[in-house]
Amino acid sequence: MIEAYIFDVFGTLVDWRNGVAAEAKRTFDGKGIEADPLAFADFWRSRYHPAMQRIRDGSRGYVQLDVLHLENLDEALEEFNIAGRFTPDEKAALNHAWEKLPPWADTVPGLTALKQHAIIAPCSNGSIALMARLAKFGALPWDAIVGADVAKMYKPQRETYLASCAALRLAPEQVMMVACHNSDLEAARAAGLKTGFFPRPQEHGPEKGRGQTKDLEASADWDIVCADMHALAAQVAQSASGA
Amino acid sequence: MIEAYIFDVFGTLVDWRNGVAAEAKRTFDGKGIEADPLAFADFWRSRYHPAMQRIRDGSRGYVQLDVLHLENLDEALEEFNIAGRFTPDEKAALNHAWEKLPPWADTVPGLTALKQHAIIAPCSNGSIALMARLAKFGALPWDAIVGADVAKMYKPQRETYLASCAALRLAPEQVMMVACHNSDLEAARAAGLKTGFFPRPQEHGPEKGRGQTKDLEASADWDIVCADMHALAAQVAQSASGA
Repeated sequence: MIEAYIFDVFGTLVDWRNGVAAEAKRTFDGKGIEADPLAFADFWRSRYHPAMQRIRDGSRGYVQLDVLHLENLDEALEEFNIAGRFTPDEKAALNHAWEKLPPWADTVPGLTALKQHAIIAPCSNGSIALMARLAKFGALPWDAIVGADVAKMYKPQRETYLASCAALRLAPEQVMMVACHNSDLEAARAAGLKTGFFPRPQEHGPEKGRGQTKDLEASADWDIVCADMHALAAQVAQSASGA
Repeated sequence: MIEAYIFDVFGTLVDWRNGVAAEAKRTFDGKGIEADPLAFADFWRSRYHPAMQRIRDGSRGYVQLDVLHLENLDEALEEFNIAGRFTPDEKAALNHAWEKLPPWADTVPGLTALKQHAIIAPCSNGSIALMARLAKFGALPWDAIVGADVAKMYKPQRETYLASCAALRLAPEQVMMVACHNSDLEAARAAGLKTGFFPRPQEHGPEKGRGQTKDLEASADWDIVCADMHALAAQVAQSASGA
């Protein structure tokens, strides 16, 4: 019996690419900068895993993802040769782009339906601060926030999943990790959690086979494999009514 | 400018006394036990601060309040001479009483109104697990959960307030602690937070001057002193429209 469904957020529930690009465009337009906002979003995001790696391997203590995003923004501004155009306050303002990411169309209705049957919470590498603001922006109806900030460690390290279950006072097998990234589910399953997958083939852009090249389908026999949040909620509702 | 309102929960937002007594009565009735459920709730709660004290003073490592509640339940069952009537599973079941506490009538409408203007989160000694279940039971519309479980330390220790602000990425002066207990606000103010007070004169029972003997009014010039959650939300809405 699954007591809680915990979710990857960036990609799985919200469209980080278009959200960040929209904020970058607004900022660039205001400054007369001609850089491509989508390319800028892609580069900024590309520094995400390398930045967390030093914390995962213990060579740096835990800091919230907001700090890493701000450091990565410096790299992105350098890459696009526009670093000199931004004051520290303007960089801090642009960093809030990660708090204004639109949910995919099925996200909120799916979470709302699922919430009737179990605890729902993000298990993201985003901080409590970021998840709270993102939830407010997109009306995500969370019961709690778990993930990296509760564990003080980033996914896919085992302790992030285990600390998230412990914060909810649940055993790993009572919790299902839901993500559109197979690697997240591999780590969750290795930690003893149940796993749920649906694809987000437009996470990296709409052009088939160009933007997105991986995670187009399930790479293993996850406990649930389905089309989207609607399908996940429907499957949970059905098994609840059958139980 | 206040960016987040964080709340004491037991007493301030939910009626722990009648909630725990209702669950105790249901359990006692099922077993033919004649103990007074309200007296039982009062005794169980009376062990709350002593149990946290060892963690506050460092002589015991942090454990979630759910664990302390279960240990305190043992003491309460002994006190009422009914310890032998409960299996471990039955004690664990009764311990869930703390997850089924009715909100006061003004709590949910007040929080819902306030949520339009700022981040709202519990800053309770209850765990994330307990706060999530309590929110589900009473439909408390939190944006996040902070408090003891984020700080791994119990109020009124300074670090509980500071870690709660840090989790939200806010400075203490951007956060208002709201409570019906003056001592909670004294500690929050000492840590640099803003403070809001309204009384809950029936927290310890309806009989004036008997159940409740303290916290009947504000003991200091808290930043907001008002009648209840409705009044708090109205005051915040008014200052937001004036700003």
